[in-house]
Parts: sequence; C-alpha cells; structure tokens
Amino acid sequence: MTAYEELAKKFKRLHALQEAAGMLGWDMSAMMPAGGAEARTEQLATLSVVCHEILTDPNLDELFDKASAETKGLDSWTQANLAEMRRRWLHATALESDLVEALSKACKRCEMIWRKARPKSDFAAVLPALKEVLNLTRQAAAAKAERLGCSLYDALLDEYEPGGKSERIDAVFTDLAAFLPGFLSDVLDRQAKQPAALPLEGPFPLDKQEALARKLMAAVGFDFEHGRLDVSLHPFCGGVPDDVRITTRYNEDDFMIALMGVLHETGHAMYERGLPAEWRLQPVGEARGMAMHESQSLMVEMQACRSREFVEFLAPLAREAFGGSGPAWQADNLLRHYNEVKPDFIRVDADEVTYPAHVILRYRLEKALIAGEMELEALPSEWNKGMQELLGVTPPEDRLGCLQDIHWYDGAWGYFPTYTLGAMTAAQLFAAAKKARPEIPEALGRGDFAPLMGWLAENVHAQASSAGFEQILEKATGEPLNPKIFEAHLKARYLP
Amino acid sequence: MTAYEELAKKFKRLHALQEAAGMLGWDMSAMMPAGGAEARTEQLATLSVVCHEILTDPNLDELFDKASAETKGLDSWTQANLAEMRRRWLHATALESDLVEALSKACKRCEMIWRKARPKSDFAAVLPALKEVLNLTRQAAAAKAERLGCSLYDALLDEYEPGGKSERIDAVFTDLAAFLPGFLSDVLDRQAKQPAALPLEGPFPLDKQEALARKLMAAVGFDFEHGRLDVSLHPFCGGVPDDVRITTRYNEDDFMIALMGVLHETGHAMYERGLPAEWRLQPVGEARGMAMHESQSLMVEMQACRSREFVEFLAPLAREAFGGSGPAWQADNLLRHYNEVKPDFIRVDADEVTYPAHVILRYRLEKALIAGEMELEALPSEWNKGMQELLGVTPPEDRLGCLQDIHWYDGAWGYFPTYTLGAMTAAQLFAAAKKARPEIPEALGRGDFAPLMGWLAENVHAQASSAGFEQILEKATGEPLNPKIFEAHLKARYLP
Repeated sequence: MTAYEELAKKFKRLHALQEAAGMLGWDMSAMMPAGGAEARTEQLATLSVVCHEILTDPNLDELFDKASAETKGLDSWTQANLAEMRRRWLHATALESDLVEALSKACKRCEMIWRKARPKSDFAAVLPALKEVLNLTRQAAAAKAERLGCSLYDALLDEYEPGGKSERIDAVFTDLAAFLPGFLSDVLDRQAKQPAALPLEGPFPLDKQEALARKLMAAVGFDFEHGRLDVSLHPFCGGVPDDVRITTRYNEDDFMIALMGVLHETGHAMYERGLPAEWRLQPVGEARGMAMHESQSLMVEMQACRSREFVEFLAPLAREAFGGSGPAWQADNLLRHYNEVKPDFIRVDADEVTYPAHVILRYRLEKALIAGEMELEALPSEWNKGMQELLGVTPPEDRLGCLQDIHWYDGAWGYFPTYTLGAMTAAQLFAAAKKARPEIPEALGRGDFAPLMGWLAENVHAQASSAGFEQILEKATGEPLNPKIFEAHLKARYLP
Repeated sequence: MTAYEELAKKFKRLHALQEAAGMLGWDMSAMMPAGGAEARTEQLATLSVVCHEILTDPNLDELFDKASAETKGLDSWTQANLAEMRRRWLHATALESDLVEALSKACKRCEMIWRKARPKSDFAAVLPALKEVLNLTRQAAAAKAERLGCSLYDALLDEYEPGGKSERIDAVFTDLAAFLPGFLSDVLDRQAKQPAALPLEGPFPLDKQEALARKLMAAVGFDFEHGRLDVSLHPFCGGVPDDVRITTRYNEDDFMIALMGVLHETGHAMYERGLPAEWRLQPVGEARGMAMHESQSLMVEMQACRSREFVEFLAPLAREAFGGSGPAWQADNLLRHYNEVKPDFIRVDADEVTYPAHVILRYRLEKALIAGEMELEALPSEWNKGMQELLGVTPPEDRLGCLQDIHWYDGAWGYFPTYTLGAMTAAQLFAAAKKARPEIPEALGRGDFAPLMGWLAENVHAQASSAGFEQILEKATGEPLNPKIFEAHLKARYLP
C-alpha cells in the first residue's frame, strides 16, 4: 500500500464512523424517547473519541509527508482528496487535548446558562461564561491559524467553509450592506401601497400537510427509497447520501411554514444524494462546505419554490389538500404571504430581504470579538446599534437581540456568514441555470424540477469537494461570487 | 489506574460502540429505506472491526494477567465482571483472523444459497455451502474449546449461553423428550372432545391493534419514556437498556398473533430495562445469556398472558378495541385459540406443547454434526425421522423440514437449545414467583403486573450477569433447572 492508500483507508474508516454518529444523531432528534439521552450521549462521545484518535494518530505525520511526495504527479482528484484529508488532520491536531476539553466544557456550561438567561433577557448572567468560551475559542483559533497560515477568524471559518476568507466576505457583505437599507425602504414603501395578504383559515390537519409535503418532495426529486421525512423539534437534514433523513415540524394553524421548511431541507437532501456514489467515504466526496450546502436548500426554497411559476403550480394542490377556495387561495395571495417583507428582531423568522442584514451584523460582531477589537461587555449595545443601522429597528430587550441565537454560546464562531453566502450563491447559480436551460421557469410551473436539478447535479452536486467553493461557482456561472446578482434577484422579486 | 480499571475502561468503550451498532441495527430493520442498506452495512462492518480490535489488542494479555492477581481479594461483583471480560476476550482471540474471515464469507454465501433453495425444497443445492459452514464452524469450535477448556459444542453454546453445558441440557431434554410424546397424545385426545374454537372475524384495523398493544405494554410496565414500539418484518427487541426498541408485525386478519408477539418482546424489554443502572456499559451489567432472556419473554407471553386470569382481563379490552361481541369474544374462546395444540412442521408457528420437540430435534442434530458423529447428507432423513418420533408427523418436503430455519445456514450453531431452556426456566420462575407472592394470579386478572414484575426485577433482572444462569435460577427458585416444573405447568394448562 502506498502512503496515500493507507491514508485513504484510515479516512474511509473515519468517515464510516462519522456516518454512524450522524445516523444516531438523527435518531436522537427524530425517534429517541427522552429517557435514552444519557446512553446516547455516551455512545456519541465514544464514537467522537474513536474518530479523534484516528485523526490524531502520530503515524499520520509521516504518512502525510510520504503521500505528498507520491501524489505530486497524480491526478487532481487524488490531490484534492489528500488536501481535504490534510485539512481535517490539521484541524484535529492543531489543539492540545487540554484545550479541546476545556473548550468543550466551557461551551456546555455556557449553553446551559444561556438557556436560562435568554428568556429573562439577562445578558449579564451569561457574560462570564461567554467570556470563557470566547477566550478559549480565540486560543483555539490562534493554534489553528498558525497551522493553517491564516487569520484567527479565517481559521474558525475554515471549519464550516473550507478555504473561506474573510477578505472575500468583507467585500461582498460591504456591497450588500450598502444596498440593503435603501432597498428595504423602497420595498416597504411599495408593499404599503399593495393590498395586504388575505389570511388563510386553518386548521390544517397534520396528515394533510405531510401528504402535500411528500408530494412536493417527490416533485423536486427526493427518492424515498434513499431517504425519509420525519418530525423533530428543530428541522434539519441528516443521515448519509444514500439514506438522507430530513425532518420538519408541523403547525396546525399554518401550513406554509412547514411546507417551505420541507422544501428547504429537500434542497439539502438533493445535494447529499447527488454526491458521486463512487467517491463515498472519502473526504473529496463530501459536500463543499456550508455556504454551498445552504445555497442548495435556498435554491429549492427561495429561488425555485417562491417563484411565481412554482406558486401557480402549488396553489391548486394546496386548495385540494386543505379544501380551500376563494381569493385567499389564489397564487397571487400565496405569493403575497411568501414574499412579505417585515424588518423584525429575530433572524430565524426573517424574510429573504431582511435575513442578510441579520447575518451581516453577526459576522461583523464575531469578527471584531475574535480579533480582540471589541469587548463582550459592548455586545448588547453594539448589536442594537447595528440593528438600527441595517434594519431600522432596535430590540427592546436582549432576548430579542444578542441572546437570540445559540451559536456563540455553544461555541460555533465563524458559522454565521455561510447563511448569506449561501443565499447569494443560490441566486447566482439559479441565474446561470436559467441561462443554460431557459425552460427551467416554465418547467417549475408544471412542478417539473428535472431541468433545474439536472443542471445542479452536473455543476454542483457531482463536483463534491473536488474543487474549492469559488472554483466550483466560477466554473458553473462564469464568475466569482457576485453580490450584484443576488441584489438583482431581490429587485426583480420585490420591486418588479 | 489498576489493570482492572484499565480493562473496565476498555470494555466500557467497547460496550458503548456495541450499543451504537445495536441502535443502527434497529434502525436498519425498523426505519431504514431499502436504498440505505449498503451504507449501513459499511457502518456496521466498520464498528465491528473497531470492536474486534479493542478485544484483540495484544496489551490485553498482560492486563488480564495483572488484573487476576489484583482482584483476588476483591468482591465477587468485580470478579464476575472480570470473568465476563475474560470470556469475551477468549472468544474474540481464540480464532485466527483468516478463520474469522473465511467463516464470515462462508456464512454469507450459504445464507444466500439457502434463501433460494428453501422455497424449492432443494437441500442438495445448499449442501456444499452448508458443508463449508459446518467445517469452518467445527474448526472455530475446536479453537475455542481449547481456550475455554470444554467440548466443541459447549464452546459454541457458550457464546449464547455463557457457561452452558450440553451435559446439563442432555439431562433436562432427555426427561422432556420422554414426557412429551405421550403427553401430546393425551392433550390431542382431550382437545378432540372439546368444542372447537369459534373464529374471530376480522378485519382488525392496524391502528386499533397497535393501540391495544400499547395499552397492554403499559400494563406490563413498559416505560415509553425509555423505549419505543415500531414495525419490522421480523419482530425483535433491540436498543439499549435505557432506550429499548421493540418491534412487531401486524396482520389485519388476526390480532392475536401480533398482540402476543408484542407481549413476548415486552418481556425481553422488561429484562433489559431492569438491568442495574449503575452497572451500565460493564459486561457484568448485561443480561445473563439467551436462555434467561427467552425465559423473560416467555414469562410474559406464555406464563402470564396466556393464563386464564389475564385472558379474562384481556377479553373485554379486545371486544372494546375491535367492536367484538358474542361467544367468540368471551375469554373461554380466546383461551381456546391461544392454547390450541397442533403438531405441525414449522417451529416458529408451533404452540407451547410442540415447540420443545422442534428444539430438542435441532439440538440433537446439531450436537451430532458438530461432534462429527453424523454426516450432513443424512440431515433430511434424520430430521424427518426425529419429527416422526417426537411429534408424529413427517415433513413432506425439506422446506417444511431441515430447510426451514436460517440458523445453521447463517452460522448460528449452539443457539437452538436456549429457546426451550427459556421455556422451562419461565415455568420454574413463575411457579416460584407465585409461591413467594400468592397475589400474582389475581393481580394479572386485573391487568396488574406489579407483583410479578417486582419479583422478577429483584430475583432476575437486578442480578444481570453477576452470577451464572443456574446460580441465579437456584437462588430465585430454590433448585436447579427442573424439567418436572415445566411438565407440571403443561399438565395444569392442557390437561386440567
């Protein structure tokens, strides 16, 4: 066996164990009774230790050295695979085990305090624990930055967005931040002159919602021989490429949220399912980071399924499913619901226009905190200032402000920008797909996703991690990430 | 850390990984879409390799040596735990990896051929593959026998029934085999003079069957905060003690089979759930072998739930669930169904009286085959001869004879006797429980399982593997396994 082959064997084992852990995580959210939590936590912790041991095996140093020499003349796929292996290895070995443990404990502790502090809007109560998390996160970032040869923030970002650079994000977010406030004001003016959306009267029985969701999943191309739809408190896409498990949460008073939620997760699922079967269990065969993943869910949810064409297809199905009739159930009115813009405090409830502002704010704040350019004491006031500047609203209390998201309290620093990078990428890919296959909008009007999904399968899904995020994007669309395309999409939809 | 503590740590890790594999196995049977099979097989194979590596780590030799010296003065619990660790280690290290692989491949191949040969009654087609399995199984048995210091058959039996000895089984099975044919003939004579059971007219909606099954599970004491009931092709009890997953299969035309099936699995579940929480993830904290496990399922299904008292409780619930009325739905008639005796060819469909004969036949045959006292060519004729002798029927073709069970074709030799050891143990434990708590039958008549389950929890479940099978049984009932008690139970029920 060559050193590369030996590495490939080790990473295959690692990946199979991570898949096992992923399935158990799905079960924990979708199936497990509450009393199983302790045993499951132990199983997952053990798997995590075994995986960590595989990645930090001292023999890997030599294997990576040897493999670099071996693969010099080899094809780019093999080199990309080796590079992905190395990236994971660098992340895993950058931190002393003391720091890993301290960080893990600090995050658990902080998250627990946050769960109590949030409903009380008591930022002061969680501040000491959050300081500890930030302090240890900065130490971890410094250790990783040294090995990866990048800034502290980029070292954290790299875990979610391999090869991502804050320099690039700064550029596109600055453009977007300059565009958004004025645009938002115009949209709100226009919206005020339009008739309000007519309410849709429930209740909407859960089994009917589920049946409609399954019908739409099948239309998108979800293969139920290779996946499931279930219920969980927080909807997500889990499982493995050949067995994708998506979840949703139904609300009897509103069918539109769960429906779009399912379509969102279906977009994630199609990406996983479209990863090349022959690259399974190798790092190069995995999805290309969180931004690309989010682009695939937002492609289905935002680009395709909130288009007029698709909503024209959806309206009669919704009427049939819930026995609706009259003007409230016409496509026009459904579109009014789906495309309503309303600046508000909570990110997860935000619409397509205001969502990026929430993300840009978090990105700016976490970058300043990681760089040591801002103190945590200033977080509530800086948060509120940013909300006023970007969205024109000021949270009246911290539970509607800097306490709302679990991310920082749980140690996920460097994750936030991927949401909006994903939204921009979705717009750019959708524009390119329509250019390449002009029949896409009309097909969506018939519930036919084949032209869109065929283009994505070839240009995104099949690429997996064989190239970098911007390389894949540029090859597919002819240019690097361009915020103007996303802005044009927003203009076309909200200021037609 | 002492050597014992180091071993305990390793076995804790091993056990957590085996639990993870167990949960994934449950998912594979109860949740997984067909297309997930290949990925899941890889995940399970990887977990199995990791577990095998833990058990065959060369460092264990020295640790076991050291631990033996350390634990000499220690309590019996620690010694029992160490003995269980050692037993697993001996099984895992007895075989060369070449033999493990050859056996695994031979079993997979043979099982595949068997799946095609069975419906065609073509024993000749599977004979060469089965010969290979038997040959390798005998090699494995020889290697294990040497390390365990026992006979070939007992070495195989030990995997399912730790410490089990064929000498003991011979004794109790000989007694039972002498009793059964005459008893069966008397039961059939008596039954012929009784009125036939009145048919129960379906269909029985699956959701009603499930609701009734859940009600009865709750009555037995199943805690849905620590377990689930789902559907699978082959019903089983899986999961882990704090999250027990049982499955069943419903048939719209017959509610009685699934109901008793659920109660059977609930008995298994109660055992798992009753294992001491503070012994989790240590070998001594596991259930005490397959015979004791089967005794707990048959305790609930056969001893408790086919008693007149319980069926009196069940009858009105069944009437209410399915809207039944009239004489067919009276307890007497339900009992006639549940206690009908009919010698037939298929073990898994057999009643309580004829089932042991099926098992005794298989035990005798597999013991002779493993000992090399019989050739596989003779299996069909010896099978049919045994059926005639024990049950008075001769299978007209091998799919109703020696091709019916997957066990041998899949490499499970030494498993069969545990079914009937379990049935005898259930009768003996139930008799002792009623003696200790005379209120048990009357309580069952109210659907109150607390007195019975309380006694079992203390005398069986809480013992886990801290003592041997017969030690636990003797402590609980005052005597070693005694076939006369099972025979007395059969007489009381079938020849009252």
